[in-house]
Amino acid sequence: MHQLEDLQAIIQKKIDGFCRKNGEEAILQPVNYILSLGGKRIRPLLTLLAAQTFTDDIDDAVYPALAIEVFHNFTLMHDDIMDNAPLRRGKATVHEKWNRDVAILSGDAMLIQAYQLIMKTRPECLAHVMETFNTTALEVCVGQQMDMDFQFRNDVTVDEYIEMIRLKTSVLLGGSMKIGSIIGGASESDQQAIYNFAIALGISFQLWDDYLDTFGDSSKTGKQVGGDILANKKTILSIKTLESASPEEKNQLLGLTEFKNPEDKIQVVSELYRTYGADHFLVRTAEAYYDKANQYLSEMQASSERVGNILQLVDQLKVRSN
Amino acid sequence: MHQLEDLQAIIQKKIDGFCRKNGEEAILQPVNYILSLGGKRIRPLLTLLAAQTFTDDIDDAVYPALAIEVFHNFTLMHDDIMDNAPLRRGKATVHEKWNRDVAILSGDAMLIQAYQLIMKTRPECLAHVMETFNTTALEVCVGQQMDMDFQFRNDVTVDEYIEMIRLKTSVLLGGSMKIGSIIGGASESDQQAIYNFAIALGISFQLWDDYLDTFGDSSKTGKQVGGDILANKKTILSIKTLESASPEEKNQLLGLTEFKNPEDKIQVVSELYRTYGADHFLVRTAEAYYDKANQYLSEMQASSERVGNILQLVDQLKVRSN
Repeated sequence: MHQLEDLQAIIQKKIDGFCRKNGEEAILQPVNYILSLGGKRIRPLLTLLAAQTFTDDIDDAVYPALAIEVFHNFTLMHDDIMDNAPLRRGKATVHEKWNRDVAILSGDAMLIQAYQLIMKTRPECLAHVMETFNTTALEVCVGQQMDMDFQFRNDVTVDEYIEMIRLKTSVLLGGSMKIGSIIGGASESDQQAIYNFAIALGISFQLWDDYLDTFGDSSKTGKQVGGDILANKKTILSIKTLESASPEEKNQLLGLTEFKNPEDKIQVVSELYRTYGADHFLVRTAEAYYDKANQYLSEMQASSERVGNILQLVDQLKVRSN
Repeated sequence: MHQLEDLQAIIQKKIDGFCRKNGEEAILQPVNYILSLGGKRIRPLLTLLAAQTFTDDIDDAVYPALAIEVFHNFTLMHDDIMDNAPLRRGKATVHEKWNRDVAILSGDAMLIQAYQLIMKTRPECLAHVMETFNTTALEVCVGQQMDMDFQFRNDVTVDEYIEMIRLKTSVLLGGSMKIGSIIGGASESDQQAIYNFAIALGISFQLWDDYLDTFGDSSKTGKQVGGDILANKKTILSIKTLESASPEEKNQLLGLTEFKNPEDKIQVVSELYRTYGADHFLVRTAEAYYDKANQYLSEMQASSERVGNILQLVDQLKVRSN
């Protein structure tokens, strides 16, 4: 059984080989660039971990895992255009380093390359893997669409918000693990269990991310605290607080009130979150999803040693978050 | 054997069914919209014609044909953003009717949908069809990249220009026919011949388009004459003329000279094209590719009746052009 570090090394080697093969073709330089920015490679890791839960031979899962990482980075390249983001991992985004049109076009090429890679799936699994991949990919687009729509709406509900993060971020984690489990030969009920596990885990982690953005310790998270508040971003915190806030407070939450300086705004809004108990609501909700995730994992027909490897990754991700 | 009109009706019915299934999902409205703008559906028609050249039962080619039309319209949606085009077929482009981000995201969804459709290819043909589709799709992106790069270069050669139009427009015609021929059960040499036919035909037609843009009769083409000249677009006419022009004429050709009005510019530049014989060069080149296309077609192992159906489409397209 491969340890996490082994699996990470396998993935990195495959990414390096892919970029080398892309060579000097102009349209593929932004592809190589965004893949070179690093990242935790969580999704391909989940694919390999899921495969390994059901088989010793994970070779067949490596190309699909790479396909998922390439797909994920394609979404980042296009999302960065839509978000007008200047930086990714401290480096210029593709549309900043090149331009908008290059980011659109190289992103398109990258999505096509993801399909070239997923076609290397073992023939007898291909139809099922592709169906999962296609469904997931479309859902990710719908999630991004919802996120963009939410900017212009003041009546987003908690349920809608959770549905948005499920689609925008969790289904790709779910798809990554389901594809790994299909290739590993899991039963249908185990495929569903590992998918549900990843979905619930993803929602839980995304909610924690929202928490840390406002209440985290920037020396630990490495991010500026209050970024979501300054950007008037809809999160579960603002949505929950809006339910009970007074008209004046609503203006503060929706970014319609002028503040003397950013610190004041962060101070006032985060205080509102506490006053209305949105912080506790978030923690309870995140914990409920985390418990649900563990429940799904325990339903799987797999040795505790193999499941332990998945739990080890979960712990690593939790440590990063706290 | 189906006549052209039958095949067109089959395609339109399939497109209508596809749009109905997309329903009211927000992200798919721009997909339905761009498909509703009409068009000659040449690419799916080529797929069905190619299949029919080798088999009587073309049912298996219908989904792949639809996939290609969806892919083609995806490229239009993204190209329109890059070209800042306000109109397509006289209607607002997607990024004008909605906005840039919607056009990016719905385009992405559309590319994924094209893959969902191509996955409906008969299993024993799937790997070969997908390989052709993927290669073609990437080449189309590279062609668009070259076209964009040419705007900023003054040293583009005729060979480079022809390579650009081969990639940007011809390979999708070639891919459409090759995929149809694979599904129809053509031999490898026939697949190659029909592919080469479509490539040569596509280059010939694109060159004619360039000719008509400058020297055509707007009452017949329905397009404003001189559009390429006013947009300082690199075409085989400007590239060929640049080879021999004086420094002052080069400025006129490259859009660096101010003209009193657009008509003057069109007048002066098209006169330069004639002076340096670029018009005749274009006609000779287009005819050579047209002859080459017919040569490839004659190499195919297929009945003259079936090949006649393809020639009928070619004639229709020629009539439109003249």
